[in-house]
Amino acid sequence: MSKPNHPDLTDRDTFPGEVVLVGGGPGDPGLLTLAGMAALRAADVVVCDRLAPLAVLDELDADIVHVGKVPRGDFTPQDRINQLLVDHARAGRNVVRFKGGDNFVFGRGGEEWNACVEAGIRVRVVPGVSSALAAPALAGIPVTHRDLTQGFTVVSGHVRPGDPRSNVDWPNLAASNLTLVVLMGVATLDDIARELIDHGRPADTPAACIADAGLPTQHDVRGPLEKIAALATAAEIAPPAVTVIGAVTDALTIS
Amino acid sequence: MSKPNHPDLTDRDTFPGEVVLVGGGPGDPGLLTLAGMAALRAADVVVCDRLAPLAVLDELDADIVHVGKVPRGDFTPQDRINQLLVDHARAGRNVVRFKGGDNFVFGRGGEEWNACVEAGIRVRVVPGVSSALAAPALAGIPVTHRDLTQGFTVVSGHVRPGDPRSNVDWPNLAASNLTLVVLMGVATLDDIARELIDHGRPADTPAACIADAGLPTQHDVRGPLEKIAALATAAEIAPPAVTVIGAVTDALTIS
Repeated sequence: MSKPNHPDLTDRDTFPGEVVLVGGGPGDPGLLTLAGMAALRAADVVVCDRLAPLAVLDELDADIVHVGKVPRGDFTPQDRINQLLVDHARAGRNVVRFKGGDNFVFGRGGEEWNACVEAGIRVRVVPGVSSALAAPALAGIPVTHRDLTQGFTVVSGHVRPGDPRSNVDWPNLAASNLTLVVLMGVATLDDIARELIDHGRPADTPAACIADAGLPTQHDVRGPLEKIAALATAAEIAPPAVTVIGAVTDALTIS
Repeated sequence: MSKPNHPDLTDRDTFPGEVVLVGGGPGDPGLLTLAGMAALRAADVVVCDRLAPLAVLDELDADIVHVGKVPRGDFTPQDRINQLLVDHARAGRNVVRFKGGDNFVFGRGGEEWNACVEAGIRVRVVPGVSSALAAPALAGIPVTHRDLTQGFTVVSGHVRPGDPRSNVDWPNLAASNLTLVVLMGVATLDDIARELIDHGRPADTPAACIADAGLPTQHDVRGPLEKIAALATAAEIAPPAVTVIGAVTDALTIS
């Protein structure tokens, strides 16, 4: 038995030289957690991404370091981010690593955790509201719904089916009867939809693509799987966006 | 395009007779969102479950209605809960439906949403931190980790493989290379592990079972898939508990 990450989150005490991985939720500052907000208020340094709810930083005294990656643009290499966290913590500062969504859901939080531990730095995580679930919810789509599905799968669509860098088993997902949520899959959505249909997901499976979830600019498109990529293109859906595929897409009565 | 659920969550205005579905996170009051807390503070009535972070209710003036289901014990039928929400809203009260985790992840939030809409009641959702992701995180397990997996699946284990009420395709999940998270699967864990191994998941796949995530009583056991059920029994792991199966279980260096 172990309790590696269970200092009471409601305990507002912090430790000099600690790194706290804080999940900021999908974009709306209201979807930050109370413990996440407390960690930010106690921080000397906040190392933050482009998709974190940056508005909450306005009230802080902390130094803000932006390391956000712009798609196909500037970014700070992960090794450098890890080193930043360690260096600031070693200098005795309270450090928050602030991300959109949840640091452990495609957020490289695990790598940052290990870099801290290997450097002898105390690290803990404050889970956030994952965009994988909240983007659908904010568009009126529950990832599970009684009698429709007993589960869901979340995958990264950042590389196309068939790309050697992909280890997503799309034929397996095509044969699944669970809700499928695809993150980082706007540019690849045409190939993903075709691959799923080619391997057995019905072409008329309801689907939705939600952009800018949790932000005032949130918008979405809905349609059958065979048309969702074209609909998303026509609606100029751009990253960050989340795609949902499955009967749950039509589960709610939208008034 | 539609924005069915996007009144600005940071807007603290509320509407008399509105129902707000608030996800309370896995148990630690610190994992409630700022918007969830604001909705609770504005509520006249809170209809809450046993697993919601009940400590946050102490400071409220609202009427508290407990409808929590005890496993194999007392519960309020879902139809009755739906009716409660509608009746209180019709009387002009601000109603919060307060659940542990996220209302749209095995929380029957979709059914409650539809009941409200069908009754002409305004309803919105404030997503919460899902226990499916946060329980592993709080035990030091990221559901994704670069180079280990590009996704994860979350399923309900409340009925055994082979049970006619189950529509989970366990052989499909056994063949998947994604992290598998099983909720509500303590009593059925022996059968689930055997089914997965029988259909191809390696018997030595790292696994963990986390009980009471986010609570001071949080504890977990770790071991290979073939032994995780026996280990959980020996450690007296009881609901609520979350099981994680996959290489991510061992991804973090625990200091």
